[in-house]
Amino acid sequence: MDFELTDEQMAFADMATAFAQNELAPFAADWDRQQHFPVEILRKAGELGFCSLYAPENTGGLGLSRLDACIIFERLAMGCTSTTAFLTIHNMVTWMLSSFGTDEAKARWAEGLVSGRLLGSYCLTEPNAGSDAAALKTSARRDGDDYVLNGSKIFISGAGSTQLLVVMARTGEAGPKGISSFAVDAQSPGIGYGRKEDKMGWNSQPTRTVSFEEVRVPAHALLGQEGEGFKLAMKGLDGGRINIATCSVGTAQQALNLAQQYLLERQQFGRPLAEFQGLQFRLADMVTELVAARQLVRLAASKLDGAHPDATTYCAMAKRFATDVGFKVCDEALQLFGGNGYIKEYPLERYVRDTRVHRILEGTNEIMRVLIARRALAEGAGEL
Amino acid sequence: MDFELTDEQMAFADMATAFAQNELAPFAADWDRQQHFPVEILRKAGELGFCSLYAPENTGGLGLSRLDACIIFERLAMGCTSTTAFLTIHNMVTWMLSSFGTDEAKARWAEGLVSGRLLGSYCLTEPNAGSDAAALKTSARRDGDDYVLNGSKIFISGAGSTQLLVVMARTGEAGPKGISSFAVDAQSPGIGYGRKEDKMGWNSQPTRTVSFEEVRVPAHALLGQEGEGFKLAMKGLDGGRINIATCSVGTAQQALNLAQQYLLERQQFGRPLAEFQGLQFRLADMVTELVAARQLVRLAASKLDGAHPDATTYCAMAKRFATDVGFKVCDEALQLFGGNGYIKEYPLERYVRDTRVHRILEGTNEIMRVLIARRALAEGAGEL
Amino acid sequence: MDFELTDEQMAFADMATAFAQNELAPFAADWDRQQHFPVEILRKAGELGFCSLYAPENTGGLGLSRLDACIIFERLAMGCTSTTAFLTIHNMVTWMLSSFGTDEAKARWAEGLVSGRLLGSYCLTEPNAGSDAAALKTSARRDGDDYVLNGSKIFISGAGSTQLLVVMARTGEAGPKGISSFAVDAQSPGIGYGRKEDKMGWNSQPTRTVSFEEVRVPAHALLGQEGEGFKLAMKGLDGGRINIATCSVGTAQQALNLAQQYLLERQQFGRPLAEFQGLQFRLADMVTELVAARQLVRLAASKLDGAHPDATTYCAMAKRFATDVGFKVCDEALQLFGGNGYIKEYPLERYVRDTRVHRILEGTNEIMRVLIARRALAEGAGEL
Amino acid sequence: MDFELTDEQMAFADMATAFAQNELAPFAADWDRQQHFPVEILRKAGELGFCSLYAPENTGGLGLSRLDACIIFERLAMGCTSTTAFLTIHNMVTWMLSSFGTDEAKARWAEGLVSGRLLGSYCLTEPNAGSDAAALKTSARRDGDDYVLNGSKIFISGAGSTQLLVVMARTGEAGPKGISSFAVDAQSPGIGYGRKEDKMGWNSQPTRTVSFEEVRVPAHALLGQEGEGFKLAMKGLDGGRINIATCSVGTAQQALNLAQQYLLERQQFGRPLAEFQGLQFRLADMVTELVAARQLVRLAASKLDGAHPDATTYCAMAKRFATDVGFKVCDEALQLFGGNGYIKEYPLERYVRDTRVHRILEGTNEIMRVLIARRALAEGAGEL
Repeated sequence: MDFELTDEQMAFADMATAFAQNELAPFAADWDRQQHFPVEILRKAGELGFCSLYAPENTGGLGLSRLDACIIFERLAMGCTSTTAFLTIHNMVTWMLSSFGTDEAKARWAEGLVSGRLLGSYCLTEPNAGSDAAALKTSARRDGDDYVLNGSKIFISGAGSTQLLVVMARTGEAGPKGISSFAVDAQSPGIGYGRKEDKMGWNSQPTRTVSFEEVRVPAHALLGQEGEGFKLAMKGLDGGRINIATCSVGTAQQALNLAQQYLLERQQFGRPLAEFQGLQFRLADMVTELVAARQLVRLAASKLDGAHPDATTYCAMAKRFATDVGFKVCDEALQLFGGNGYIKEYPLERYVRDTRVHRILEGTNEIMRVLIARRALAEGAGEL
Repeated sequence: MDFELTDEQMAFADMATAFAQNELAPFAADWDRQQHFPVEILRKAGELGFCSLYAPENTGGLGLSRLDACIIFERLAMGCTSTTAFLTIHNMVTWMLSSFGTDEAKARWAEGLVSGRLLGSYCLTEPNAGSDAAALKTSARRDGDDYVLNGSKIFISGAGSTQLLVVMARTGEAGPKGISSFAVDAQSPGIGYGRKEDKMGWNSQPTRTVSFEEVRVPAHALLGQEGEGFKLAMKGLDGGRINIATCSVGTAQQALNLAQQYLLERQQFGRPLAEFQGLQFRLADMVTELVAARQLVRLAASKLDGAHPDATTYCAMAKRFATDVGFKVCDEALQLFGGNGYIKEYPLERYVRDTRVHRILEGTNEIMRVLIARRALAEGAGEL
Repeated sequence: MDFELTDEQMAFADMATAFAQNELAPFAADWDRQQHFPVEILRKAGELGFCSLYAPENTGGLGLSRLDACIIFERLAMGCTSTTAFLTIHNMVTWMLSSFGTDEAKARWAEGLVSGRLLGSYCLTEPNAGSDAAALKTSARRDGDDYVLNGSKIFISGAGSTQLLVVMARTGEAGPKGISSFAVDAQSPGIGYGRKEDKMGWNSQPTRTVSFEEVRVPAHALLGQEGEGFKLAMKGLDGGRINIATCSVGTAQQALNLAQQYLLERQQFGRPLAEFQGLQFRLADMVTELVAARQLVRLAASKLDGAHPDATTYCAMAKRFATDVGFKVCDEALQLFGGNGYIKEYPLERYVRDTRVHRILEGTNEIMRVLIARRALAEGAGEL
Repeated sequence: MDFELTDEQMAFADMATAFAQNELAPFAADWDRQQHFPVEILRKAGELGFCSLYAPENTGGLGLSRLDACIIFERLAMGCTSTTAFLTIHNMVTWMLSSFGTDEAKARWAEGLVSGRLLGSYCLTEPNAGSDAAALKTSARRDGDDYVLNGSKIFISGAGSTQLLVVMARTGEAGPKGISSFAVDAQSPGIGYGRKEDKMGWNSQPTRTVSFEEVRVPAHALLGQEGEGFKLAMKGLDGGRINIATCSVGTAQQALNLAQQYLLERQQFGRPLAEFQGLQFRLADMVTELVAARQLVRLAASKLDGAHPDATTYCAMAKRFATDVGFKVCDEALQLFGGNGYIKEYPLERYVRDTRVHRILEGTNEIMRVLIARRALAEGAGEL
């Protein structure tokens, strides 16, 4: 067992920190305020490989492990939670395309996605199929060499500003086995985009509904086999969950760093806040839980890298725990800032707003509990 | 002992509910989005007596008990947290002016405050005197028949849009006993207002810094006696704390009502969310803690009404507990709404943002713990 | 609304405190260690009316309200949790007998139960019918003028040392409507008692299984009507729940009082523990939650007294919240005592062990959540 | 980074599991009931190397890493918490003697401690020096070739049944730098033992006060240098803390395993408890937090193995988190067992009692927070 970063991982982490400090942090508040989607910055991220961290090398990806990717995303999230979160979704899409796409699809999209010139959205959730994703109704009927899509998706990150949509649609029977995945050109005729959602946070990425009306896509847009779509989508989500978890960890670490500074500097009752034991105990619990959360995320990433049979369970545990802890740490840090925590001059309230959604998306934390409990009640659970 | 509302209290509650549903709820989202301060609605509230609930009748106030006021504010907060919260501050100011003002001051301000034609701000907090309010530095030096104020205040609710400032300033020695309170015309020469703070929530009320540069106020602006200002400010805050606590309770009740409806209507996995025991247990805890919080607030209000020697402790307990529970209930309700909880089409995320500050202002929940612990360590604490 | 104790309630409370300090507290540790059931003390309690607090006056009971009873039980529990808890069960039995018994049954038992000369046990739970009490299988078949009981009960408080058993048994169809209640002489032929259970706490009262083999009871042993037994049992439990809740509150108050003293006296790092803010904050939260719990219990008692349609829900909320808070406060108090909290020379560890079972019995706190959620999802829940 | 056990670690774990199942679990309840200290079993443990897991090989120890030791202790604790906890203390003593003892001391004690033929106690805490251990007053004055000890120690595990006492005593100035450690023969003239403490749990190991009255020990009993004693004691505790933490993890894992089985087998309302989502969610949280706790303990052990500069902080975090989580998991498992959780026929209540003290000893969890906060407020805390 070994818990230390390798030199290579530290080098990646340093690079990510530099990017976060130079390209993300200085602008994050503005992007939030103006609901600006910084596509230019995402392209810069692509230049450094951040758009394809764990995509296979044969399509231009860095081919890093999920664990490596976690380390990098954590540092990026310290600069801007929302932008990094989008980047993790883009990475998931890039990985799905690169891993399961046909040669035609890869030829069409891989280089663009890898470089960050093109951006991807992941289209699973529907108005009536949220936690119960396998109940999705968007249909893809075969018609000659094409598939024809009809239906609609909601809460699609990046929608309206991305070029590739990975769309889960029903090609067969009810339930998960009737679902297929497609790499769809976001400009295809028949695709409509709803208005940009006004959200509590995650404002540096647009969220929209996407509607499909007789949208024709070529057969080679199919990812994997027909009927495999739900399985692929869930595979993507295993990684997506630790990515989001790591965005929570990184943001919380940043909140903690700021809280530490604030406690040391801010004086009340004639001494720095840092000298008040009531606040010290709070800080101690924040750092302890955060370190525990980080470890759990890394454990899950490692299980995913090793294709451990319980990888999905570990990813669910990591996502549940780290997004709850991350939010809590940000919320407590805001509290330590007092009134200053509540105003936009300081980033704390943004951290709280941004990390709030992590407890909901990529499978709500309630669905995580469903997944974990299922495993915890099966044979051999004691080995978890 | 009697825990039931009287007929009169129920009538007040119904009136408040009607106002909340007709005059607040339909606009609250817009006010939040546009950072609009609805002075016209506050005036309407004044017409119904909501601007002077517990101000004495001899200055036109309703002369209700704090307990009555809680019941009313709770219902109003169900319509708009932020606006009701401002209203509670205005009530606190009205009460201070009406209770401790000179005849001249009352003649000048009382009718306007009571009717809601004029609005009041409470100016205690300073950049370097937040939790340690008694360390405030704004000075008021006697000069002939006037006092001359210098210094600055931050996080002042309503500032820039209110007509009366109740200002705590130092007239004497360091510490709480050197502080006096003044009823200051908000337009007085020498008063400057900072830009409107961008806040996480509470957007229907402006928050600004207020600076005083050789601001001349007449001697009859003094509330109570010289040196009594901190005591009066704290008396005001006892009530202010249960007011804010009740705003949390009302908002959380509204969140709970919406969550109940959502659970009954929203279907996943072929049945309403309401049928999932994991969510039922969550709802059960939300309602239980909220009922407990409401009772604690009412207990504190009753202690304040009865001038109980431990009233300040009860108010602190109620504020700490109810603002934490209120936030938690709103946060859990948001979670039950899933993705819909995160978008502004639904009010849940606003409830979370608005109630977040209640844990900070009118004395942070950490300061509440300081107050409670002081009492809990003194003789007779077992009687609490 | 009125939250203050009346003079009469204070007099009762003082009497209970005196009893607790003189007759319970000095012996509680010994009773725990020796698993001694202090029947002689229960008789003394009966002399003061503590065996029939809310039983009707026409059978010799004090006819107090449930709220009055709570106030008294809370004080008694400060002396010995386990003995007081048994006393509350005895009170429940006395009330059921007095309220629903036939004249013959009352003639046979009431005076003895009221005076504490005879003691009662409540026999509902069965090995396979715990949380699902309505599934009980113990049968009572009519045979001439008698009923004949067969089956077994577990976790029966007092069993083997009590004279009266109130037994819920099936006289009809499956489900709650086929259940009847009987006042059964504990010495009846055919009744067998298991060995005394070794328990974590509650050691001053014996707990045994009770088996019924062709136990013949006269028809006038029936409480209420045939088929009403489950309803009566649940009515009894509404009160039982607030009784147990109040035992948690009283014990926690005692733990808090001791913790206060300990913090003031125990020195570490050159000053009393009371000066450490980290511990102060802890104490503040303990007292706050305890006061909230007490209020919720009193609210529920008042709803029961007023026959409020939601009384069962309030009792469930009070039981859930107060038993959780009570345990937590005792556990935190133990922690504040450090190593001394863990040894039997101090009562803290006993408080933890004794209050632990309150979260389980009289309906587990999970069943409380089921009850609360059912109501919280029904129409008008917003009025809770 | 690598989170998987090596084959060797798995072999150790299997051996420990076999020992736990055969030599500990079948007797644990009896040892608890009879307060029996199973010295014969400890000797058997010694035969397998469990008495000297991380003591250096040159004195006969296994020379394993702390991480290896954690893995082994975790499995042992699944069989008997209290006995394993004593074993961890014995290991700490063995390690201190083996690492810092003089040749004479090692010759006298090492083989016996390693084999389990002799047992050791760690004597730090005093009646007035608990959390503030550095304030200890037991004195060791130099007299010729000897030291003469006077003073007393409390809460000494094993005292009265062990052969070696590692005693921290003051040889110099006030504070930590005036303290030295000694390897003292437990039978030395002048040593007195108090009565066996009655404790909430940890009943398979005796706890006593130890008094020293003019106890003469040879100079070669000194561990390390004069004045180094506190440093050595704290070094011992770093390991002691992860040992205790791992005892909590192991016990909680066992509680979880039993809870899983119980949920699958126990039927209520016509189906196994395992089908109730309210309980599933509970189980999911238990397993998640436990996995997080285990990872944190392993991380800390690894930091200690690597002599990381922040090892003490990581050990404190692991101890705080894992002992709290461990207790909570045991407590929740008890709750899932309902009434059966409360009786001694099932081991759940014992797990709760045994793990309760882990939150207190080897430095209370409050002292852990002090240590963590100190580091979290210093430079470079962001690297934790």
